[in-house]
Amino acid sequence: MKKLKVAVLGVTGAVGQEFLAILEQRKFPIETLKLLASGRSAGKKIGFMGKTYTVEEATPESFQGLDLVLSSAGGAISRALAPHIVKAGALMVDNTSAFRMDPEIPLVIPEINPEDIAKHKGIIANPNCSTIIMLVPLFPIHKVAKIKRITAATYQAASGAGAKAMEELQVQARDFLVGKKIIPKVLPHQIAFNVFSHNSKIGPDGFCEEETKMVKETKKIFHAPEIRVTATCVRVPVLRAHSEALFIETEKNISVDEVRALLAKAPGVKVVDDRDKNYFPMPLEATGQDDILVGRLRVDPSAANALAMFVSGDQIRKGAALNAVQIAEIAFKNK
Amino acid sequence: MKKLKVAVLGVTGAVGQEFLAILEQRKFPIETLKLLASGRSAGKKIGFMGKTYTVEEATPESFQGLDLVLSSAGGAISRALAPHIVKAGALMVDNTSAFRMDPEIPLVIPEINPEDIAKHKGIIANPNCSTIIMLVPLFPIHKVAKIKRITAATYQAASGAGAKAMEELQVQARDFLVGKKIIPKVLPHQIAFNVFSHNSKIGPDGFCEEETKMVKETKKIFHAPEIRVTATCVRVPVLRAHSEALFIETEKNISVDEVRALLAKAPGVKVVDDRDKNYFPMPLEATGQDDILVGRLRVDPSAANALAMFVSGDQIRKGAALNAVQIAEIAFKNK
Repeated sequence: MKKLKVAVLGVTGAVGQEFLAILEQRKFPIETLKLLASGRSAGKKIGFMGKTYTVEEATPESFQGLDLVLSSAGGAISRALAPHIVKAGALMVDNTSAFRMDPEIPLVIPEINPEDIAKHKGIIANPNCSTIIMLVPLFPIHKVAKIKRITAATYQAASGAGAKAMEELQVQARDFLVGKKIIPKVLPHQIAFNVFSHNSKIGPDGFCEEETKMVKETKKIFHAPEIRVTATCVRVPVLRAHSEALFIETEKNISVDEVRALLAKAPGVKVVDDRDKNYFPMPLEATGQDDILVGRLRVDPSAANALAMFVSGDQIRKGAALNAVQIAEIAFKNK
Repeated sequence: MKKLKVAVLGVTGAVGQEFLAILEQRKFPIETLKLLASGRSAGKKIGFMGKTYTVEEATPESFQGLDLVLSSAGGAISRALAPHIVKAGALMVDNTSAFRMDPEIPLVIPEINPEDIAKHKGIIANPNCSTIIMLVPLFPIHKVAKIKRITAATYQAASGAGAKAMEELQVQARDFLVGKKIIPKVLPHQIAFNVFSHNSKIGPDGFCEEETKMVKETKKIFHAPEIRVTATCVRVPVLRAHSEALFIETEKNISVDEVRALLAKAPGVKVVDDRDKNYFPMPLEATGQDDILVGRLRVDPSAANALAMFVSGDQIRKGAALNAVQIAEIAFKNK
């Protein structure tokens, strides 16, 4: 893989910062690095691999001569800048929801549908974090037993709503413990010592956007328009890493031992399933890990060929930045 | 209803304390009140309705002349003392799991199966908190459309593991925020800024005791041995009140509008379901309320006749002490 001219768009956000951490950890071959953000962050200094970089304002002219743009600056900015990135000849790996459901644009989890990467026309979409965390451990089961239905209930960290929401959780917890009145600013409700239905917009069908993403993106990534998915998304007072209670129904019968064996050798997954010690996936332990933790594996006797499990994954890492960098690694592998 | 000679067994625990609060709030007709606990709490003073009572050690001789014993002192103590309570001629309303699945002993949620109260032979069992919070809002739907399957994922407060776990959450949160090392003592894992699979014992089928209670108790309370129930129980860093993401499948089709109308007039339930304001049940708001909050009501298109919803309820109140006192009120109504 040749050294690339890379830009990180939205570098000052939680995912933008994680892009830099992952590029460094994975020794991603970088020839030049450009840090892009909105005008109000321009001029900010950020260190990377021992060098100091200055954040530049992202404009339509920012992308000339680049090979790769890792973007996570919000859907509107992605939509506005994408034509310029593509015209400049760079590959845009986009972490926003802007292009995920565009039939012309691949939506990729490298452990699941890496073959879709080659179909890109300049843009590859990175799935929603809750979708990635759900599908990485489910795909090995799907390949063998074909999943017909997924029911998911999520336990989503504050940081899914950005670095400011993560800060708000800590400030609220501190205030709550000393009896101070709490006035939510970033998230719509008190998050400290509380849980609430995910803060994305509710559609006319009663599902919030986060849930609808899980439903639609699963069909696209699995190339399975017939798969039935339902979800209830909930914010919990966790700083980082999302968890999900998953219930699945498969076409073919598969035993828990088979599932455990499949997951033990599956890429991107770590089985944490010690019944005697009551030790299962926890967001605190998933934080900072590349793997999605999976456990509580058991037969669900309430339906035919049904299984239940619990997963935790770092939604900023595998749920966002890591997945995008993995896509780029495959896209440029033989170049 | 005549004035009763009442004892609260396990009065120093979280539920024991709530028994007193609810007896007082509901102006329960009390002639004499006896506060019972283990030997190490004997001698402790507790105020009730302007009088000071002294906690006595519970012994087989404690129950002579009593009409009612509200008990929540642990399954082993309930088992040991129940024969003496029954022999003394008192009614034992027991909040432990000791007798719940005994076919001779009624298991009652007053909004659902009050008719079972009259069948008692000295003991009535109070269901598990997560079961009560799940079934109070589901029963009105079950009556009309017959529920075939329930899939539940819980978000359970620390206080479900007792007053000490609630204290531990606050201590851990304080320590975490100042960077102190956290060593769990009451709960098996860090609860502050974390979630983990419910801390009850995992059975050979992979389900924990809390989940199995929800499965078995539902069949008994609904008098529906055929109903299929599955659950994943999870602790969240909330002080009080449990929440649950519920997915149900019914025999007959029922619209969301019908469900909303049914729940609006159902006893023990409050609909909190404002899609525009993204305002739904939250444990912070369920705390201290008698009603179970229910919202996120929507058709689940992933199965036939399926619905999804989210509920929050105070598990010490309706999930325990209030439900037991309501049982006693019915048991002694015409006496």
